[in-house]
Amino acid sequence: MYSVVLLGTGNLAQHLFEAFLPVKEIQIVQVYGRNPEKLIRFQQHTNVCSDPMEIVDADIYIIAVKDDAITAVAALLTSKKGIVAHTSGAVDMDAIALKNRGVFYPLQTFTKGKSLNFGHIPICIEAEQAASVQMLKQLGGHISAKVVEITSEQRKKLHLSAVFVNNFTNHLYQIGADICEKEGLSFELLHPLILETAEKIQDISPFDAQTGPARRGDTESIKNHLGLLNDQKHVELYTLFSTAIKKAYEKKL
Amino acid sequence: MYSVVLLGTGNLAQHLFEAFLPVKEIQIVQVYGRNPEKLIRFQQHTNVCSDPMEIVDADIYIIAVKDDAITAVAALLTSKKGIVAHTSGAVDMDAIALKNRGVFYPLQTFTKGKSLNFGHIPICIEAEQAASVQMLKQLGGHISAKVVEITSEQRKKLHLSAVFVNNFTNHLYQIGADICEKEGLSFELLHPLILETAEKIQDISPFDAQTGPARRGDTESIKNHLGLLNDQKHVELYTLFSTAIKKAYEKKL
Repeated sequence: MYSVVLLGTGNLAQHLFEAFLPVKEIQIVQVYGRNPEKLIRFQQHTNVCSDPMEIVDADIYIIAVKDDAITAVAALLTSKKGIVAHTSGAVDMDAIALKNRGVFYPLQTFTKGKSLNFGHIPICIEAEQAASVQMLKQLGGHISAKVVEITSEQRKKLHLSAVFVNNFTNHLYQIGADICEKEGLSFELLHPLILETAEKIQDISPFDAQTGPARRGDTESIKNHLGLLNDQKHVELYTLFSTAIKKAYEKKL
Repeated sequence: MYSVVLLGTGNLAQHLFEAFLPVKEIQIVQVYGRNPEKLIRFQQHTNVCSDPMEIVDADIYIIAVKDDAITAVAALLTSKKGIVAHTSGAVDMDAIALKNRGVFYPLQTFTKGKSLNFGHIPICIEAEQAASVQMLKQLGGHISAKVVEITSEQRKKLHLSAVFVNNFTNHLYQIGADICEKEGLSFELLHPLILETAEKIQDISPFDAQTGPARRGDTESIKNHLGLLNDQKHVELYTLFSTAIKKAYEKKL
């Protein structure tokens, strides 16, 4: 049984709280947050506090706050003996100026109000002390089947990859939606294609999954498509992607 | 009951064949293909032919061949009375130089050897004659709950959108895989994120779904990410995407 204090009340904090709550090996002894209003939703389940002086002792402190607040929140815990771990993909472990520090980074996009099954979400662990690595691994293992130990450097690269496959992909969806809207077409027509594109990649590599005019070297279709685009930014993206894809497959032929 | 001749033996032809086969209102009376070897897999289920002179009469001819072969294959059917429809997203209906022409375009990515449920795949219909529109709609309705009539112009724009959300998205997956590989990380770590990104969009708009440094206007994270990228093409894409996302949300603030 681990006692856990959760620091933060935002989107990720809420998702982690929901994931930890039903696990009998994890006892969330407290949720800390500066804004008392945001603590209301937690206080029916556990002790809450907005005064740093009231933070209780626990085995593990999980900091789920904005990147630039991690150092300051960690500084509230200088007198504590438990592990202090942040949950960010982009921040060095050293942002926590404590000896017993670590990272507990769930690699996923968390949408407000949308429940998630943590079962297969990778939890990326890092800690200063070997015993803390083990403890964070066990904590992660209670909510996910995929717990991995990685370095700060690897985590940053993973987070960067996530920006490409998540944030930028979503912007491509936005472009698709814009083109449809201008043509009086429902974006919903693209939903099944979007889903299949993501599902496909669960079984085959992106290299093998690639299709389309650029993959085929079909310059006629590419020319036609460029002629259909009105937005100069879309033309730039179309050209960059097509050039990159063409090159990747020329190389391997 | 409609009699259908399928012209083509490639990936899409096979998927359509599999979708049509169990439908009792559809009788695939023949599959035509130039290469006899590629007909073998069809001939246990229906009549096949590789001689254009042997093509039988049918209510509907579905041409599922490469874009640049559509006109030539349609020309084999000048003496036929049935509807002649191609299945391409990018080709004008006029590529078929026959009076009773149409389009039957399933908007999806078809992977060789991977069965697909057509149930929710949009089938985009177009035809010269009103009666043919109805017949193609009914044909589509037997395999999908989503059959829509759109113009050639709309279809081309839809196909262009599909290139963004499917082909280019897959290239972003490739970039994610490349970054992971260089860092000794398994690309599988990104699988759940990729899937959730696509699933999210089934319920909320891409505009509301957008997250990440550019959305937050977090220039510090953007600078750090650019510093981590080694490939100049990735830097270009990162910058283009981030600028576009930042702009979209500045506008709406």
